[in-house]
Amino acid sequence: MGDPAGVGPELCLRLLADREMSERCVPVIFGDAAVLDRVATQLHWPLEARRISRAEWPNACRELAEPAVLDLKCVDAAAIVPGKVAGICGQAAFDCFTFAIDEALAGRVDAITTAPLNKEALHAAGQPFPGHTEILEARTKAERSCMMLTSEQITCSLVTVHIGLRDVPTLLTTQGILDTIELSAAAMQRIRGRKPRLLVCGLNPHAGEHGLFGDREEERVIIPAIEAARRKGIDIDGPLPPDTAFLPKYRKACDCYICMYHDQGLIPLKALAFDEGVNVTLGLPIVRTSVDHGTAFDIAWQGKADVSSLKHAVDLAIRLASTDV
Amino acid sequence: MGDPAGVGPELCLRLLADREMSERCVPVIFGDAAVLDRVATQLHWPLEARRISRAEWPNACRELAEPAVLDLKCVDAAAIVPGKVAGICGQAAFDCFTFAIDEALAGRVDAITTAPLNKEALHAAGQPFPGHTEILEARTKAERSCMMLTSEQITCSLVTVHIGLRDVPTLLTTQGILDTIELSAAAMQRIRGRKPRLLVCGLNPHAGEHGLFGDREEERVIIPAIEAARRKGIDIDGPLPPDTAFLPKYRKACDCYICMYHDQGLIPLKALAFDEGVNVTLGLPIVRTSVDHGTAFDIAWQGKADVSSLKHAVDLAIRLASTDV
Repeated sequence: MGDPAGVGPELCLRLLADREMSERCVPVIFGDAAVLDRVATQLHWPLEARRISRAEWPNACRELAEPAVLDLKCVDAAAIVPGKVAGICGQAAFDCFTFAIDEALAGRVDAITTAPLNKEALHAAGQPFPGHTEILEARTKAERSCMMLTSEQITCSLVTVHIGLRDVPTLLTTQGILDTIELSAAAMQRIRGRKPRLLVCGLNPHAGEHGLFGDREEERVIIPAIEAARRKGIDIDGPLPPDTAFLPKYRKACDCYICMYHDQGLIPLKALAFDEGVNVTLGLPIVRTSVDHGTAFDIAWQGKADVSSLKHAVDLAIRLASTDV
Repeated sequence: MGDPAGVGPELCLRLLADREMSERCVPVIFGDAAVLDRVATQLHWPLEARRISRAEWPNACRELAEPAVLDLKCVDAAAIVPGKVAGICGQAAFDCFTFAIDEALAGRVDAITTAPLNKEALHAAGQPFPGHTEILEARTKAERSCMMLTSEQITCSLVTVHIGLRDVPTLLTTQGILDTIELSAAAMQRIRGRKPRLLVCGLNPHAGEHGLFGDREEERVIIPAIEAARRKGIDIDGPLPPDTAFLPKYRKACDCYICMYHDQGLIPLKALAFDEGVNVTLGLPIVRTSVDHGTAFDIAWQGKADVSSLKHAVDLAIRLASTDV
């Protein structure tokens, strides 16, 4: 359900009411029924899904065939102010998410799709994680993982994610880049059903122009990772100058970009794919996809939020969960 | 003419042969006639423009009414290997460019449009500049200047340009951002003929998310520049999270983005505007525009280079040179 004060609850209501979606999977909202009821009442939307309590869940999940709300009773619904950062909301989002992770690890759900959470609310609740990805890594004890954003037009995997720009050059390692390459190659093989082609961006302007800009990060850190990946049979090229890497001719020739930092990948992805991007966490023992937008506090609980990113995220989760690895 | 071993010469040949262009301005190639002849012969293209020597130029420039080549005899044309980095080519490009700057400063040309040069060739020639912009700043003794990239779809000004990513946070200053904002606001006023609206990108992912990522550069350095600009009457907003800043809804509401580093502005510009971007140097006593692509050594002297960025750059130079400041 994501942060209850954001657009998560109304997106969940739309998903539960989407017949086409419930023919393709059994959506279960891990959230709070009282919050969903409050949003549904405010918007005059129906909420007809079955409600399941924590106690009923272990049995109910076995034969579930229709959309449902797993009511985790994780927050006082009356205390929520839509669009406001609050520790109780950060904690509720955290509780729903970790409950879902545990159920996925136990094999009682096939895949998780997440609505947005708010990092400030998470911090206000005393949770030190900067985002979903880091919670997933810790909770699933994944040795390596990576955030990939995918859309019709473009797919980008990020070597570093939620860190300050000044820390990017220091935290880039050949092993980190190679991990991102390997996880992305495996994921794109599953998504495309054929051997994918990867392109790696440089770190500096013009990919450092042979050492003129930066500290030769391309030669010291990035190129060794590309060479190691090639030796493992991965079809890969780079490092490309980041500004020309996203020209249409390269986009056409590339299944996935390996990007050195958050905005190197997310700027072109969002500029080109708008609200259609889906966020996938690779390298986990479970399938997890997510919307690629935030809590959108400015329009929360108003019924204006676009459900298309969430639907794309559920689509991809279905595809990944039903593919043999 | 740019680097003679790159696509500059063939782009100049196309420009000279463009009737529509020579009705709107008098194009003069500051270059080497023997190089242009060699490329023209290889491509079986005509080169019918008048040739002017250095000695003839001071008189010839006064009554010039047709396309011309100012033959600076700056390189041994027979020694050039197309597509290869060479000190003689870097030096030739440098000589043509600085000659053009001096003529513009002297008022004998109205505007300069540059073909691409190669930074490695420039360095091989012992010229320490990373690019055109820095040569312009030094040669014109400009107190402040800024690189702006503009296209139909999107316009971006860069606060820092040709430096390593690791140096960006250190070299960002409130004054530097404010200079970029003021120069961009003035230029867009001239280009649009009305008060422009500017958007400023943050430095860190999510614009630092209130200090969660980075070293509070948004609060310490960027926001004070925005507030100072607003006090001067500039219509400006930000800092926006860099990844969402380039969504269509923001692009529509914005005449120019103020970007903190090279790829923050050039990735979305090139992804959205392809070959149509034009590079303008703001803050100089002369008008200077440029193509937004490189020397394209891989296709040099083959007649494949697209002249559209050069034509857009000449278009903008005409517009800027004929507007009263």
